[in-house]
Amino acid sequence: MQHRVFSQQQIDNIVDELKITNLEKATIGEVLLIASRLEQKTGIPFIRMDQGVPGLAPCRIGLDAEKEALDRGVASMYPAAEGIPVLKEESARFVKAFLDIDISPVSCIPVTGSVAGSFGSFIACNQRDDRKDTVLFIDPGFPIQKSQLKVLGIQYEEFDVYKFRGDGLRDKLETYLQKGNISSIVYSNPNNPAWICLTEEELKIIGELATKYDTIILEDLAYFGMDFRVDFGHPFQSPYVPTVARYTDNYILMLSSSKIFSYAGQRAAVVCVSDKLFTQKSEALARRYSGAGIFGPTFVGAILYMITSGSTHTTQYGYAAMLKAASDGKLNFVEETREYARRAKRMKDSFERYGFHIVYDKDIDRNISDGFFFTIGYKDMNCGELMQELLYYGISSIALSTTGSQQQGVRACCSRMSENLYEVLDSRLKAFSLDH
Amino acid sequence: MQHRVFSQQQIDNIVDELKITNLEKATIGEVLLIASRLEQKTGIPFIRMDQGVPGLAPCRIGLDAEKEALDRGVASMYPAAEGIPVLKEESARFVKAFLDIDISPVSCIPVTGSVAGSFGSFIACNQRDDRKDTVLFIDPGFPIQKSQLKVLGIQYEEFDVYKFRGDGLRDKLETYLQKGNISSIVYSNPNNPAWICLTEEELKIIGELATKYDTIILEDLAYFGMDFRVDFGHPFQSPYVPTVARYTDNYILMLSSSKIFSYAGQRAAVVCVSDKLFTQKSEALARRYSGAGIFGPTFVGAILYMITSGSTHTTQYGYAAMLKAASDGKLNFVEETREYARRAKRMKDSFERYGFHIVYDKDIDRNISDGFFFTIGYKDMNCGELMQELLYYGISSIALSTTGSQQQGVRACCSRMSENLYEVLDSRLKAFSLDH
Repeated sequence: MQHRVFSQQQIDNIVDELKITNLEKATIGEVLLIASRLEQKTGIPFIRMDQGVPGLAPCRIGLDAEKEALDRGVASMYPAAEGIPVLKEESARFVKAFLDIDISPVSCIPVTGSVAGSFGSFIACNQRDDRKDTVLFIDPGFPIQKSQLKVLGIQYEEFDVYKFRGDGLRDKLETYLQKGNISSIVYSNPNNPAWICLTEEELKIIGELATKYDTIILEDLAYFGMDFRVDFGHPFQSPYVPTVARYTDNYILMLSSSKIFSYAGQRAAVVCVSDKLFTQKSEALARRYSGAGIFGPTFVGAILYMITSGSTHTTQYGYAAMLKAASDGKLNFVEETREYARRAKRMKDSFERYGFHIVYDKDIDRNISDGFFFTIGYKDMNCGELMQELLYYGISSIALSTTGSQQQGVRACCSRMSENLYEVLDSRLKAFSLDH
Repeated sequence: MQHRVFSQQQIDNIVDELKITNLEKATIGEVLLIASRLEQKTGIPFIRMDQGVPGLAPCRIGLDAEKEALDRGVASMYPAAEGIPVLKEESARFVKAFLDIDISPVSCIPVTGSVAGSFGSFIACNQRDDRKDTVLFIDPGFPIQKSQLKVLGIQYEEFDVYKFRGDGLRDKLETYLQKGNISSIVYSNPNNPAWICLTEEELKIIGELATKYDTIILEDLAYFGMDFRVDFGHPFQSPYVPTVARYTDNYILMLSSSKIFSYAGQRAAVVCVSDKLFTQKSEALARRYSGAGIFGPTFVGAILYMITSGSTHTTQYGYAAMLKAASDGKLNFVEETREYARRAKRMKDSFERYGFHIVYDKDIDRNISDGFFFTIGYKDMNCGELMQELLYYGISSIALSTTGSQQQGVRACCSRMSENLYEVLDSRLKAFSLDH
């Protein structure tokens, strides 16, 4: 342990100061507080692999459109409950351009980030059919979504997809769906934290079962097009980004601006409800909201509107402008974000050089893509141990156990790496391997 | 009926087209659709007294600060869960400057509009104590807040304060509070829709009972300082805006930017939790969220963060700049919004000239203030009749029955009046009175 960057005492002091009861089970918020405080107190920089924040400049096109909207005075006017027309139209067009899916503008609804999108979707999906009161997570996943269900008092089931890739996924999903209580199934693709990508075959299985069991798929496309093994950056031409929307009408897609346009601060996302689901009548919704119970209008007017009464007016113009530029072929957001793949590649090389391994390493038979996140393990260390040990070497990460994974390792985010830190990372990993 | 602006047939057609089942019980959304569609189809302008939207330009100081923040690149970075420091500090300072209440910046939390503030507050207050599962409304009030409870499946009680002003308020409130199940009490002051203002004596009663029964007061200050009978526009000097915060520590204040800075489009508000409540431990919250159960941190980290993960980053800078300018004495938002009092006065004069009366006319012994809203009745017409009859004369309003009021009449909002419309209003009211 003679090569540590921070001593046991230094870490212990911070853990005490922050009143963290169990370091091995530290939440993402706690890990980033530890890293920030240690940096502050010692002046020694951390390799911050913890939070998944954009590491690029915000998209200029969005900023300019927001400024124009500020100048036009829209700040005084409530945005329409269903969103401004131009954002609805550009969302539908973007979905056509990059997913090759037909959807009406009316079915695309702006929300205050995908977090608000999933929060509202959970409510709508769980109130839609009295018999369906449980959400199913295809893990690993985004811990915030489970925390949302805790706020709402909604139950969930979960399983780690690691051992159920390919054909095995069907049987596994059916063990849950057969009970008849699953309102919705959630996953992100590419996956946060594992960066695995479900294949077209797997999405087909999910879609078919969604239709068979009348369950809604909440597909989180936060890292849209960022499977860099394929070039998805060209509008209205193949290859198109994989989506469950090709295989079922029971879907809600979540399109965030945070990562693809580096726009996380503005809280801008759109949820896209399939046209068929949008116009579907639900007796349970009709009863609860004393209305016609049509899914889409109820979702917009009786649920989402009651949470934030629309999302920031000028930001809607900003997001619309960026989507338009992408669909016009004037903004290749895949190229813009490919920088993350380069960062991940260099980091992974360092980790592997010193005896670490990639935990979620394959999409069935292909190596996973380099991208925003990757997962690493070390020998037989468990999640909490590895996360904690890495802290001593000035490297912050997230234990996989906090993401619903059954595998041992940590999540690494590459977004905050910069040129001067690769050597630092390499020497710290070398020190780690000497001590272990 | 020979003086109507729109015929029975014209109204019937629109009602059919919009699939409105019961015109007398039309929601605010339906009324504004009727008015918009009729304007569109006939080219005849409506006197739009329906929706409470700002009728002034957005505050320049906010716009400029937002643009600066856009230029600084904050759009790419997630705002801190608890809000940006400058907005927290300026909120606390504004509360001191205009309410003369001491509150720490940490207890002031940005939200995506006061709608998100009340949504999150309802959750926190109702999960704080297992025995307290019901919200009490001092009506008339803002229908959206009741709709929020429908989304969340939370029960509520309500009463019209009309007959319980002054000392009578104590006994009325205790009939509810004695049951021990009231988690929180909600009202707006000045009141939407009635524009009554609770007196210091009434706020004292509410505050004392909140402490006695451990119930949290959600005080909606959307129309902050807009009781124009008193000049509240000067920071750090008496008179201060009345607030329940003077009489209890069990409060959450909701400070919206929408009306006082004409900033409704940006969805910017702050909730201010009393410092004592912020640091209070709740066993129920500790159990539910597997944490320490301290009210403030749980509210911020486990509830509000899960709904939108912060509010738009650049808008937080805009709101902070406007609050600062107000506290610095450089922006007199009371003078800026006094225009609404002038509009209301002229409109009320017209209504009274043609036999209408103000429904909620007194704060105990004083005439109410002129301001953003007022309420009018006509002879013995009930709410739905009057709202519907006024539509024939090209005047849109909200039936008081939709706001929890037991009185007969409609709510009128003056914000969209413009110079050229006063004569139109006058002639239409004259026509109305000739026909009735």
